[in-house]
Amino acid sequence: MVHTQHVCTRKMESRSTPCTATCFCHLIEGCRVTIPYFILSTHCSQTAGGHQSWLEHQRRPLPPQAPSCGSSSLAQRCTDHTRAPGDCPGVFSAGLDLTEMCGRNPAHYAEYWKAVQELWLRLYLSNLVLIAAISGACPAGGCLISLTCDYRVLADNPKCLIGLNETLLGIIAPFWFRDTLVNTIGHRAAERALQLGLLFPPAEALQVGMVDQVVPEDQVQSTALSVMAQWMAIPDHARQLTKNMMRKPTVDRLLKQRDADIQNFVSFISRDSIQKSLQMYLEKLKQKKG
Amino acid sequence: MVHTQHVCTRKMESRSTPCTATCFCHLIEGCRVTIPYFILSTHCSQTAGGHQSWLEHQRRPLPPQAPSCGSSSLAQRCTDHTRAPGDCPGVFSAGLDLTEMCGRNPAHYAEYWKAVQELWLRLYLSNLVLIAAISGACPAGGCLISLTCDYRVLADNPKCLIGLNETLLGIIAPFWFRDTLVNTIGHRAAERALQLGLLFPPAEALQVGMVDQVVPEDQVQSTALSVMAQWMAIPDHARQLTKNMMRKPTVDRLLKQRDADIQNFVSFISRDSIQKSLQMYLEKLKQKKG
Amino acid sequence: MVHTQHVCTRKMESRSTPCTATCFCHLIEGCRVTIPYFILSTHCSQTAGGHQSWLEHQRRPLPPQAPSCGSSSLAQRCTDHTRAPGDCPGVFSAGLDLTEMCGRNPAHYAEYWKAVQELWLRLYLSNLVLIAAISGACPAGGCLISLTCDYRVLADNPKCLIGLNETLLGIIAPFWFRDTLVNTIGHRAAERALQLGLLFPPAEALQVGMVDQVVPEDQVQSTALSVMAQWMAIPDHARQLTKNMMRKPTVDRLLKQRDADIQNFVSFISRDSIQKSLQMYLEKLKQKKG
Repeated sequence: MVHTQHVCTRKMESRSTPCTATCFCHLIEGCRVTIPYFILSTHCSQTAGGHQSWLEHQRRPLPPQAPSCGSSSLAQRCTDHTRAPGDCPGVFSAGLDLTEMCGRNPAHYAEYWKAVQELWLRLYLSNLVLIAAISGACPAGGCLISLTCDYRVLADNPKCLIGLNETLLGIIAPFWFRDTLVNTIGHRAAERALQLGLLFPPAEALQVGMVDQVVPEDQVQSTALSVMAQWMAIPDHARQLTKNMMRKPTVDRLLKQRDADIQNFVSFISRDSIQKSLQMYLEKLKQKKG
Repeated sequence: MVHTQHVCTRKMESRSTPCTATCFCHLIEGCRVTIPYFILSTHCSQTAGGHQSWLEHQRRPLPPQAPSCGSSSLAQRCTDHTRAPGDCPGVFSAGLDLTEMCGRNPAHYAEYWKAVQELWLRLYLSNLVLIAAISGACPAGGCLISLTCDYRVLADNPKCLIGLNETLLGIIAPFWFRDTLVNTIGHRAAERALQLGLLFPPAEALQVGMVDQVVPEDQVQSTALSVMAQWMAIPDHARQLTKNMMRKPTVDRLLKQRDADIQNFVSFISRDSIQKSLQMYLEKLKQKKG
Repeated sequence: MVHTQHVCTRKMESRSTPCTATCFCHLIEGCRVTIPYFILSTHCSQTAGGHQSWLEHQRRPLPPQAPSCGSSSLAQRCTDHTRAPGDCPGVFSAGLDLTEMCGRNPAHYAEYWKAVQELWLRLYLSNLVLIAAISGACPAGGCLISLTCDYRVLADNPKCLIGLNETLLGIIAPFWFRDTLVNTIGHRAAERALQLGLLFPPAEALQVGMVDQVVPEDQVQSTALSVMAQWMAIPDHARQLTKNMMRKPTVDRLLKQRDADIQNFVSFISRDSIQKSLQMYLEKLKQKKG
């Protein structure tokens, strides 16, 4: 038997941003070792300085464990910050926290980037079934999180734009964002989407393969749940080994050059020109809020 | 000038299963070295213990020759077992013989898996034009065979399901099944199809790219023949070299780690849990028959 | 501010063929170092011996510079041969010059092939935005040129066929043609298209992803210009780095084995059987003209 629990809704307390992320975890009763099914579903409003997200938690010390068994602890850590869901609708995840990339020192950037890598490694190779229930905007790092899931359900609302729009901010999606996108929508569509920083509205997102299903806004959660039921019907060990076989080569590419990727990020983000454009962008966001 | 011959319809005599496979070979008169055009089209009914197939022949000693010239001998060996076609309609190929994977010893499993590898290597890199005329169910190993062809024509019948449904049996499609599928329908669709063990009905099979054409059941053979005529119009040496260029990297991946792949299969299939679930599956099939 | 200039229309004077290529370059005022935006648009009629093209220019000595900064000089060299545009409608580019591959010596073939490689390397990894405005036939090497662009607009005219039809001439598209095509339309579609030497009419070209947009013939240029404006709105350094990230692995594959690829071409094209079939093809073209 399966029941559903809200194990995680959390408030981004730091930097006083009202962002909340909601995660639904589905437990199989009697399952002791892992929580094998997991729906990502965040509701948070984007605000100035508001590129905070889901990812912030990663900056805390991670328990020393293999990525393959990290998912349950990820869910566990999420439960540290529970709150009623749905209080900040409009955004699935605003992605990486720009304030972490702006006006800090190289050591800070390196630590932050390592945490971002860690989140991706854990989600992309998670043994859990991950279903993204996307009922808000889903740009940049938020899009990446959804792309690590096994299935994406998007609300049919023109505000629900999804895409890796890094170039629009003057920054670059790293190669493992690229790999994740290419795996999802193919090389040509990824080439165009990444260069133009495209944010796809629902119909286009579906057509290009960025999401698997578009449904009316009030059916996103129920659709995600019924999709999950389908994935849960598969013998778990066979599904996990198959998922691993599909994704391990992509993960290995990052593992082979993780430090180089960090150095690359740090030296890029430390450039004066990049810092300037990020600051201008954050200013603009603050003025919007003000 | 070209004429058509039924060079191969065969009965699976071993294990007293009524499965028959029909192959149409198209000979160019005067061509001595190879039979360059080949349509795969099997008609066999699935029965209990009935995961026998096309592949059984591979368990016989193979003549010492390069895979690239193996296709004619493959066709040759098929002619050893001729019978009138069409006497066992309903299944294109039921795929691998589960009885070969159940209750045997490791040496047996190793020998069987090597033969399965051999069949794939020969078909996937065959210099022949291979057209799959699929007028029956096409699961697992049967789907793999069809994916090695140059073109797939599927009957528009809801019983004609096609897909790599290994996970449903609790087993795993090996990496070269994965590669063959990814080459055909892309990474994302393969990831979903393999994890869920999807068997696509005709319309979905066409949409996802698992087959190239869906036609009424009585036009499968004639369509396959006219498709073949199109492929035959291409200068043969250029077509063969181009096919080789497209497929060789995928084949090389297996050749580099053939023994490791065998060991991997043997240790997986020898697990108590896997043996148990295969036995239960075979029991179920027998009861269906009985 | 941006303005448009015809910086390049050129006549293929050598071998007295009436082929003309038109290129539109878009300059950002004040930009000193590079011409960052570039539309490929050739208007030339195909004639006997007329597989001359755009590529001929490459046979001149190239200035000693990295491919990454070669584009401005490519544009520069184009300006050496200006002429009014549009005087030879009907062909985007007829591709490689078959007369360069026929009846010459190995050293000549090697030099020619190196130049073809060079053109591809420069175009495919160009920092410029390249938009192909295709209002004529676009076979073989012409198709390759269009595939190096960032976006392809095709005229909705049944004469505007596009594809890598090398096998039809009995020759083989090299592996980097294959890679470029696979990157654009995926592995399966490329496998079929390359083996059959398919030339796609507009609707099919759009469906398979060979081009990005099909528009009425008289809107090709204006559409290309407005697409370019979209690409120009992206911060240039981010776009360039992203483009490089997408394409560098493909380029590196050729760079690693450039000499082997030349030797491979020379030995293939020097075969008696290949020379014979090219000569017959050229004869046929001459008779058509005569």
